[in-house]
Amino acid sequence: MVNSMESLPSAIDLSHHLTEVARSRHPSPLKDIISYMSRPGMISLAGGLPHPSLFPFTALQAAAYPSSTVLDTASPAVPHQSVKLEIPYGASTSSPYSLTSLLQYSAPPGHLALLQFTKELTKKLHSPAYINYVTLLNNGSTDGWNKLCTLLLERGDYILVEEQIYPSAQAAFIPLGVRSAVVGVDGEGARPDLLEAILASWDASKGRRPHVMYIVPVGQNPLGSTMKSERRKQIYDICVKYDVIIIEDDPYTMLQFGDYELGKPSTPAAVSCDVEEFVGGIEKSFMSIDYQGRVIRLETFSKTISPGARLGWFVCNEMFAERLLRGTEVQTQHPSGFSQMIVGELLNQWGMSGYLQWTANLKEQYRVRRDWLLNALADEFDLIPAHLSDVKGALGLVALSKTNGKPLLSFVPPSAGMFLWCDVNYASNQEFQNLVLSSQDPEGDFEHAFWERLAAANVLVTPGWYYRPWMGEEFRTVKSRGGRPGMGHFRLAFSLEGKEQILEGVRRLAEVMHREWA
Amino acid sequence: MVNSMESLPSAIDLSHHLTEVARSRHPSPLKDIISYMSRPGMISLAGGLPHPSLFPFTALQAAAYPSSTVLDTASPAVPHQSVKLEIPYGASTSSPYSLTSLLQYSAPPGHLALLQFTKELTKKLHSPAYINYVTLLNNGSTDGWNKLCTLLLERGDYILVEEQIYPSAQAAFIPLGVRSAVVGVDGEGARPDLLEAILASWDASKGRRPHVMYIVPVGQNPLGSTMKSERRKQIYDICVKYDVIIIEDDPYTMLQFGDYELGKPSTPAAVSCDVEEFVGGIEKSFMSIDYQGRVIRLETFSKTISPGARLGWFVCNEMFAERLLRGTEVQTQHPSGFSQMIVGELLNQWGMSGYLQWTANLKEQYRVRRDWLLNALADEFDLIPAHLSDVKGALGLVALSKTNGKPLLSFVPPSAGMFLWCDVNYASNQEFQNLVLSSQDPEGDFEHAFWERLAAANVLVTPGWYYRPWMGEEFRTVKSRGGRPGMGHFRLAFSLEGKEQILEGVRRLAEVMHREWA
Repeated sequence: MVNSMESLPSAIDLSHHLTEVARSRHPSPLKDIISYMSRPGMISLAGGLPHPSLFPFTALQAAAYPSSTVLDTASPAVPHQSVKLEIPYGASTSSPYSLTSLLQYSAPPGHLALLQFTKELTKKLHSPAYINYVTLLNNGSTDGWNKLCTLLLERGDYILVEEQIYPSAQAAFIPLGVRSAVVGVDGEGARPDLLEAILASWDASKGRRPHVMYIVPVGQNPLGSTMKSERRKQIYDICVKYDVIIIEDDPYTMLQFGDYELGKPSTPAAVSCDVEEFVGGIEKSFMSIDYQGRVIRLETFSKTISPGARLGWFVCNEMFAERLLRGTEVQTQHPSGFSQMIVGELLNQWGMSGYLQWTANLKEQYRVRRDWLLNALADEFDLIPAHLSDVKGALGLVALSKTNGKPLLSFVPPSAGMFLWCDVNYASNQEFQNLVLSSQDPEGDFEHAFWERLAAANVLVTPGWYYRPWMGEEFRTVKSRGGRPGMGHFRLAFSLEGKEQILEGVRRLAEVMHREWA
Repeated sequence: MVNSMESLPSAIDLSHHLTEVARSRHPSPLKDIISYMSRPGMISLAGGLPHPSLFPFTALQAAAYPSSTVLDTASPAVPHQSVKLEIPYGASTSSPYSLTSLLQYSAPPGHLALLQFTKELTKKLHSPAYINYVTLLNNGSTDGWNKLCTLLLERGDYILVEEQIYPSAQAAFIPLGVRSAVVGVDGEGARPDLLEAILASWDASKGRRPHVMYIVPVGQNPLGSTMKSERRKQIYDICVKYDVIIIEDDPYTMLQFGDYELGKPSTPAAVSCDVEEFVGGIEKSFMSIDYQGRVIRLETFSKTISPGARLGWFVCNEMFAERLLRGTEVQTQHPSGFSQMIVGELLNQWGMSGYLQWTANLKEQYRVRRDWLLNALADEFDLIPAHLSDVKGALGLVALSKTNGKPLLSFVPPSAGMFLWCDVNYASNQEFQNLVLSSQDPEGDFEHAFWERLAAANVLVTPGWYYRPWMGEEFRTVKSRGGRPGMGHFRLAFSLEGKEQILEGVRRLAEVMHREWA
């Protein structure tokens, strides 16, 4: 559905989703004074800011890669060319930023230039389907997600999450007394039929029906899955039907690098990526189908510029944004002025087209890295395409033992992000079969033992249990959670290690598996 | 009491003060893996960090004032000399910071060099009386205070606060369903007798007895008061007796500039301040008498270096620090790497003695500014010393009308911080006396009317009601709160405006008061 701006609806009233804490926040009384401050001739003895001449910094410069830089993840080197960034001391026409304003306390929503940039980026990439959405900066998505928990989740609530979840995401809500309502996944992430089943048959004696869904739709961590538009529409319609707010945590949105082709040698990073092709090819945000304003989007500069900047942003309807702003005023005040100045001035120099060129090139580096990992697996195992209907319902790959043909691993090659999620076939392992006879939780026990054996062989993976949603004390075993018998998991990251380390790491993994599944 | 390090006690167990949320936080499971990562020969496909070669920044430089700079707040100008700050790209011997490490996700407690600096500073200035205290960075005291609310305050709790409180401080806890138990003040801040009266006679039917006290002991905002060591000891002993945790929010600790002398012309800022004299002259933290570890200290670089950096730190016992760290991991992750690098490298270049020299000089600028304001008041009113026993129990000044000798204002000249708090004698105003006959809340109504009249005369002050602690809906009038009949308040800030503006602002204020109290 393509809408012209004029025909887009406004967000509906969703204020009944706010927590008691979020509803209780009041604007600072100091706001009343601010309108008086700008009157001509006014002298203000009201505001308690330090005089900017008392800040010790007088100059700030940085150098950065030109936006057209083609990186080489195989042999990293600092490019010869660079863009010079200079933050002016006071107000100037060369930059929207200045030391005197950003060393000072500044506006809680974030600098106007960054708000405009993030809003324009959202519009260009994700074509929101309602008109009155806004952006609001935060201190990165950890901060953003924590603020959203305070905004929406009450003690005793259940939250809809995918079958595997990033541990720090749930570490934010578990202490609030919030539990997971787990939606089963396939190769595209959360399954609509399983989502609807949970909502349709909710047992109200457990607590109110979940009204918030947390989802990582692109390069899901740890699943590596990316949800396509048709699936998103199905999920969204169910959330409309059951009045569920969707939190779309989308840090990997700019790292969508396309499908893996088995048997095709990896090509080096493209020298010049076509920006329009990149923009046209990415999976659009849930916002592109959100005609009600029930999606809250978390995006960040962590994966595209620098995690250390701790700079991200919300995109949401005005009502949620106003409540988040009231929270921001007392939770963090505003993101670091240094981060805003330096990242902001880089974007000012690069421009929107430069940022898109940079990310289009950057995603190629992750494609190359994904290919290193997948090709290494293809070297060490016999990889065959398979409909993993019993596991994920999607086309994937099965890794067979080179020595005895046993199926050892299965996975869906990621088309975005940093991670490969592997299902491990415990059922064909003899030690596991022995555990089935003796253990209350054979899958859990074997996962620990297998991980230890990999570590002893000097290769670290992240074990599957790291990502298990917290359902409560009574759901500690794989069986009690409805997990598949005889199946385990681990996550492989292809973001950090070099090519040789990835190849050697996979070799060690394969050696252990061939031995243990002999 | 002077203790040698060896004889200092350890903190006692105070974990019963933690909230359910704080008790429920668990370490990230990823921590288990970190110990394996450093094993020789290990290949980690576990950690999901971006490769640092993919961050676009290659150089970062700043220039800053030498630590010995004598600023001139009367005619601010950038000094000719400057210290060059250069953040190395990778690890080096020239700096503990590097772009590759601080552009990356970094340690939630903050950079080790900053932790060491803040701990050394605490030790040097405040001589903690127990041995196992630690520092932990936060994103400035707004963030720090919000984290402490989550650590200690449950819905339904009462918190001990001073009679006037910074609005954003209470905006953090009011939405949590926490109310104020208000401790009356005099010229040194909270009065021990009134604190003990509240705790000794607590009516348990309202809720549990307060177990947390929030206090700004130096240059209190808005009171401007500074608490001396004898008073601190009295407050501390009461908090031990009733098992109260003291949150010491101390942003103005380095801005202690000494007493005001009526009738003495203001001297310019000292050209070279003696650091040891400065250090020896400041009021030490509550930590200097805290032999149990029940004080949590909030300090910040906002007033001494840059508020925009959003960089502050906790000092507290190891148990609280560990729980705060678990919170930090999911609330903010870590402060901005840019802020840490730039502020950190400035401190690296300046050294501890340089930072102390800088702050010793800086506080002179606030002393000069305080003198501008007080001398302007002395010019516009007849100032006479008085024991303000009926108001504050401390030596202060009363401002009499130049035309009819009526007492108009009374205040205690601040010896630290940025603010002067004025009591206003409503009782001698005819319009107020008319309101007494007609209004349910004459003090409240007159405060609004008087503020509007000042604004109409082009001078803004912050009205007293901004700083009223929230005691609940039933305590909206001054009378119901036990406020003094016929008395109002406003706050004057001397931190931001220039000398001419301060003189003219006070002139306008005096003109309105002489007219309204004719």
